[in-house]
Amino acid sequence: MEPFSPRMARLVRALQALPGVGSKTASRIALHLVHKDRSGGEALADALHDAVANTTVCKKCRNISDVEVCGLCANEKRDAKQLCVVETPADVVAIERSGGYSGRYFVLHGHLSPIDGVGPSELGVEVMSARVKTEGISEVIVATSTTAEGEATAIYISDMFEESDVVVSRIAHGVPVGGELEYVDMSTISHALRGRKPIDSG
Amino acid sequence: MEPFSPRMARLVRALQALPGVGSKTASRIALHLVHKDRSGGEALADALHDAVANTTVCKKCRNISDVEVCGLCANEKRDAKQLCVVETPADVVAIERSGGYSGRYFVLHGHLSPIDGVGPSELGVEVMSARVKTEGISEVIVATSTTAEGEATAIYISDMFEESDVVVSRIAHGVPVGGELEYVDMSTISHALRGRKPIDSG
Repeated sequence: MEPFSPRMARLVRALQALPGVGSKTASRIALHLVHKDRSGGEALADALHDAVANTTVCKKCRNISDVEVCGLCANEKRDAKQLCVVETPADVVAIERSGGYSGRYFVLHGHLSPIDGVGPSELGVEVMSARVKTEGISEVIVATSTTAEGEATAIYISDMFEESDVVVSRIAHGVPVGGELEYVDMSTISHALRGRKPIDSG
Repeated sequence: MEPFSPRMARLVRALQALPGVGSKTASRIALHLVHKDRSGGEALADALHDAVANTTVCKKCRNISDVEVCGLCANEKRDAKQLCVVETPADVVAIERSGGYSGRYFVLHGHLSPIDGVGPSELGVEVMSARVKTEGISEVIVATSTTAEGEATAIYISDMFEESDVVVSRIAHGVPVGGELEYVDMSTISHALRGRKPIDSG
């Protein structure tokens, strides 16, 4: 028999929209939010409603933003000469967390995938290329994923700027820092071998 | 640098109220709900707000309910002679899922714990005992956990009904069904040995 009240059952169903959450985890979360941490549940409902209703896409970089031009694009301390092109807003988060980049971003919201009807215009590459010209960007760093589609997207972007002075680079792929060769997959190792560099002994 | 807009950052913080969710998982969930599954996010915000604002505690069994008397208490098909006493609403869910019980419930919302100031009145045991008398319940099944506090609570409840005709039973503890002895902890095995029963070869 259904062990939940109708309202709780509706919450359990809605929680299953979360990535990786099945019915058991959803039950546990629902009981936690409604029973053990009601104020946390209320705060989460408000924050989620506000974020879904009031966030938009930055008109410059297409990242998720509260306002027309996002904080990263508006920040004058960021290097305006570099543009890092990524597939998703989550990639921006990962790169910002690394602390290894201080330029601007452009979010494609996907990769080239003709079979799914995703072509260059869906990814907004014209918007990006216009931005590169008008803002005088000198380097485009392509950080799309290493899947076949991500690589095809990288090559497409690189071709776009072939006739211009803009440098198009690709982030390095290889053995993860701290990774032991024994546990690294074959294609990463062969990538790392092909991408080897002379040791700079300073 | 903070990679999220203020609204997204607020959502990420609020998501950390979920059990077992740290900042990385919270970021992933936030991006999913706001970006990939906006309608799912909206539905979740509504369901959560509704559940937190409009659920209460059933006045008969103290389980979470939408109305004064919950569906389980109001269901006349359930056995009115049996009352299963549990610590949390989650325990009701677990027992209902098992399909092995068709009586009524009483939720203590905790266990006896003098050090935390939790005595019999906090657990509503008088409410339960009054219910046993007025409803003519013949068996109280104590399904509190097997921790020291859960056992103490079980003994307290058993003592309450010593002078009456009410049978107080404790759910069986032993080797989980499908469990191999090799992987079962010592105290469960010793519990299972003490609780052994003659084989009924029928």
